Amino acid sequence: MEENVERNMESNTIFIGKKGTMAYVLAVITQFNQGADDVVIKARGKTISKAVDVSEIVKNKFVNTLKVEAINISTEEIVTENEAPMKVSAIEIRLKK
Amino acid sequence: MEENVERNMESNTIFIGKKGTMAYVLAVITQFNQGADDVVIKARGKTISKAVDVSEIVKNKFVNTLKVEAINISTEEIVTENEAPMKVSAIEIRLKK
Repeated sequence: MEENVERNMESNTIFIGKKGTMAYVLAVITQFNQGADDVVIKARGKTISKAVDVSEIVKNKFVNTLKVEAINISTEEIVTENEAPMKVSAIEIRLKK
Repeated sequence: MEENVERNMESNTIFIGKKGTMAYVLAVITQFNQGADDVVIKARGKTISKAVDVSEIVKNKFVNTLKVEAINISTEEIVTENEAPMKVSAIEIRLKK
């Protein structure tokens, strides 16, 4: 299932989207199992809550030694065709094993 | 409107609930205008996204000198009558003027 989750292999980034929370939990765990020392979880808008859920579930249920190394929030602009640019909040959670 | 937003005057804490985002933006700005040096925004579950929106709107539109001093995420247990305890993610965003 984790193959379907969008991610950037180089920087070990998991982008939170519309899939269920556990799909992203699995994606994060897979990154760590493949040797990553840190994984960055990114989300925008309403999926921000899911990003926090994913971090907490990985930390509390799967990787007890995990540390939340940094959390950053920001505002991003989404440009879509035919519509005015829309501002949306974003979060980046950096997890370290 | 801000009088209706639940908050703890001593610690300048704003709890994000079901009201519209701007109600909480106004509550945060009011705290700063009343002399607070820092304000803590707390949210649980699906309102976490709204907490990030509130921080970003206050920072970008109202208090340009604002700094996000700390962001903490955690898991809280909600105990309700007749139901098993439920775990929910939580966020705390500390803003400093």
